[in-house]
Amino acid sequence: MSKLKLNITMSIDGFVAGPDQSLEHPLGVGAEELHDWLVPLKAFRESHGEEGGEVNASTPFAEDILGGAGATIPGPWDESWKGWWGDNPPFHHPVFVLTRHPREPLDMQGGTKFHFVTDGIESALDQARAAAGEKEVSLGGGASVAQQYLAAGLLDEIVVSVVPILLGGGARLFENVGDVKLEQVESVEAPGVTHIRYARA
Amino acid sequence: MSKLKLNITMSIDGFVAGPDQSLEHPLGVGAEELHDWLVPLKAFRESHGEEGGEVNASTPFAEDILGGAGATIPGPWDESWKGWWGDNPPFHHPVFVLTRHPREPLDMQGGTKFHFVTDGIESALDQARAAAGEKEVSLGGGASVAQQYLAAGLLDEIVVSVVPILLGGGARLFENVGDVKLEQVESVEAPGVTHIRYARA
Repeated sequence: MSKLKLNITMSIDGFVAGPDQSLEHPLGVGAEELHDWLVPLKAFRESHGEEGGEVNASTPFAEDILGGAGATIPGPWDESWKGWWGDNPPFHHPVFVLTRHPREPLDMQGGTKFHFVTDGIESALDQARAAAGEKEVSLGGGASVAQQYLAAGLLDEIVVSVVPILLGGGARLFENVGDVKLEQVESVEAPGVTHIRYARA
Repeated sequence: MSKLKLNITMSIDGFVAGPDQSLEHPLGVGAEELHDWLVPLKAFRESHGEEGGEVNASTPFAEDILGGAGATIPGPWDESWKGWWGDNPPFHHPVFVLTRHPREPLDMQGGTKFHFVTDGIESALDQARAAAGEKEVSLGGGASVAQQYLAAGLLDEIVVSVVPILLGGGARLFENVGDVKLEQVESVEAPGVTHIRYARA
């Protein structure tokens, strides 16, 4: 069965998004710098159709985020929406959106198809696993969805990319998740970030 | 001028001590496992007069905690007290205790001398630096004292040892510290812990 994994960037004070998240500021105000380790990378720039960029110890983690999965369960979703990404979203595989509002699937360019799941996180995971085949299922950023999968014991692997910034407020990943047991699998030093991989213990 | 440094172990959910800290549970209830990476080490056992133990990638960090400093400013202190450690405390150097209650210095065995400082954190740091000479000043565990030095911009270096446990409550280090800027200096993978060294940016 394919693994459900989460790649998420966390400030050293524990936040995965800043305060006042909105469509304009999907990561919250002031939290764009969470991804300062990711954005300059060649792997990231290529995925956005741009040339150049850095290659460093973060590259395998960026490649994993950008291309490793066979299906995605994304974070918060606005009702009548096609996501943040325009007509050609960066997924290029089936995406299972948790929502309370039934809606027909949405075919996007580049192989991305949004499916809207109204019957809960386990159903979304089952459908995503079926779609992912041999590949992993990626849980998109968004503390609340991640917390639900973590608390339910359904998350197999988490890569926490710890960055040396303090947000001072916002959404925490590891909150309201109950008695979760994790095991450290590896940690990797990279410029301006430490990637720590955990498995469910 | 000698550096002020803090070595502290933090759960992945951001706590450096559990809930309900007391003389009986100095790290709070359930938080003893924070130091599961440290206690089995040869360096730790030797400092407690015991033989055997492990040597691994955590060893330099343990040696730094246990013997690297020339003076210490410890965490919370009970008024009429000689500390947790009995007659021969593990410091073996001058210790500057922040308190509101003037008190004569206390000579302990093994070179430890407790000085009681009533005129604030900068004074304690000045005195500790003078005593430390060429060596570093170590800030003892205890979120509240550490937060004060961090917020005042007086902390030169922090080693955060991130462990894969969730405490679910307790004292956070990186809280109430204002606009602190840190730079990641190195991170080191070790069994069951990731040591991340930060400098003031």
